[in-house]
Amino acid sequence: MKLGFVGLGKMGLPMSGRLADHGHTVYGYDAVPAVAEKAAERGVIFVKDFAAMAEALGENAVVWVQTPPGKITNDVIAALAEALPAGSLIVDGGNSDFRDSRKNGEMLAQKGIHFVDCGVSGGVNGAKNGAGLLVGATQEDYEKLLPAFEALAAPDGYRHVGGPGAGHFSKMVHNAVEYAIMEAYAEGYELMKKSDIEVDILSAMEAWQKCSIRSFLLDEMIEALRPDVDLDDVIGVVADSGMGRWAQEEAIRLRVPTPVLSMSLQARFRSQEEESPAMKSLAALRGVIGGHPVKRKA
Amino acid sequence: MKLGFVGLGKMGLPMSGRLADHGHTVYGYDAVPAVAEKAAERGVIFVKDFAAMAEALGENAVVWVQTPPGKITNDVIAALAEALPAGSLIVDGGNSDFRDSRKNGEMLAQKGIHFVDCGVSGGVNGAKNGAGLLVGATQEDYEKLLPAFEALAAPDGYRHVGGPGAGHFSKMVHNAVEYAIMEAYAEGYELMKKSDIEVDILSAMEAWQKCSIRSFLLDEMIEALRPDVDLDDVIGVVADSGMGRWAQEEAIRLRVPTPVLSMSLQARFRSQEEESPAMKSLAALRGVIGGHPVKRKA
Repeated sequence: MKLGFVGLGKMGLPMSGRLADHGHTVYGYDAVPAVAEKAAERGVIFVKDFAAMAEALGENAVVWVQTPPGKITNDVIAALAEALPAGSLIVDGGNSDFRDSRKNGEMLAQKGIHFVDCGVSGGVNGAKNGAGLLVGATQEDYEKLLPAFEALAAPDGYRHVGGPGAGHFSKMVHNAVEYAIMEAYAEGYELMKKSDIEVDILSAMEAWQKCSIRSFLLDEMIEALRPDVDLDDVIGVVADSGMGRWAQEEAIRLRVPTPVLSMSLQARFRSQEEESPAMKSLAALRGVIGGHPVKRKA
Repeated sequence: MKLGFVGLGKMGLPMSGRLADHGHTVYGYDAVPAVAEKAAERGVIFVKDFAAMAEALGENAVVWVQTPPGKITNDVIAALAEALPAGSLIVDGGNSDFRDSRKNGEMLAQKGIHFVDCGVSGGVNGAKNGAGLLVGATQEDYEKLLPAFEALAAPDGYRHVGGPGAGHFSKMVHNAVEYAIMEAYAEGYELMKKSDIEVDILSAMEAWQKCSIRSFLLDEMIEALRPDVDLDDVIGVVADSGMGRWAQEEAIRLRVPTPVLSMSLQARFRSQEEESPAMKSLAALRGVIGGHPVKRKA
């Protein structure tokens, strides 16, 4: 098939290249024109703007958007809505907020443009070697895009998970679950590290890979620990991205008890604080209530 | 090698059978003599008591114990300590409390008997088709048992994780992590189920199997949901076994923050309550403080 591809960054470049590898004609655009050469090497035809892309694609255009979530992606989709004719189809493959995706879908529908939201998992490695795809789309749009999914996904790696919005929603839940699983392994690591029984942590985790908790993330944890199981030079500050927070906002709105998902996000927040005002106030409060000594900075 | 095997139940019978399949001479014992026939079918020679087992094994006896953790296993080990000569070796392959294992190891050492604790993972399926083994042992005892581990483990499925105690300790941590991972998937399920965006949950989880959170436990969750994704006839009461609780006792003793491991155990406790006294008291307290209406039984 013929399609446009907006965003030729660390995800978009290998993804558009995979589409070209599979014999599709890909018109690529990026705000950074310098990537044009790299795109050409991957078989992607670089176009200078959305008008040129629309011109090249003609009627029933299909454009895949792979840009940073939030304002950039929303602006790209709004601009494409102006450039493309009714009957076109836009796919958002970024880590967008599903609430944005719902709004974008509604906005595009008013212009007669179809919208598909696609959660893409596996990071840069997945972009290069085949990703997991969670597709929110009408049945018609889903079927239209099958050749693109075949090109982008790992073997048997894509699913139609519901209507528009469901792709980014289920990717958001995926990421929230990922936080909790990563935190679970991390807490298990600390229990073994602080135990007075000496445990060969790497051997234990290697054995775990033959046990019920075997997983891709455990593999990655073993890789992270292999150079130095004590992690002496690692600073324990852990960033969080939008999806973990959005999942908690949604859990609160829907009143879904999610203690483990919530705690794993909270643990990251705590790691991001240089010192904890809550714990400072608690230390001071214990001093007042119980006369317990309060340690103070010199 | 020649070895004794105590406990021919749903784990012990297939495990002793695997040892026999690998050409080892296995003298089996179980408190239920009726299993003798089944044991014979699997190539295991049934003996009537520990004295007979000791007689058959002679000097440098090796006995694998696969019995329910707690009093039964401790009693079996104490009885074996009386029956076996110094220089023998006892392996506890059950889900024993690592603190018991430490005590048993010390008690046996005083009699000149070696002790190895081995966490066995994979349930009945692992017992039949090859398990994950977490072995706590001295180097000498570990090497002596290699032929048995080869017979019992999945390919590349065993590791020497530390000295005596480390096997059951790292199995305990494994199970605590397992609780949290299972809870994370369960909370993700509820988020998708209660969402006002309609999500095809099974398709989403199948796609997740190509994403970062792919795992054995996710496979099992998909199997659990496949017959009826709404689980209409399932009662949401979740049991917990010793290891999840022991891990929390140890986390408290060692002062290791384990919010996610702890919450996953707490969620099971809550599920086991028909009604929550805490929530009843909270409802009553809100009534007193804020004059909020308190719902009462008719």
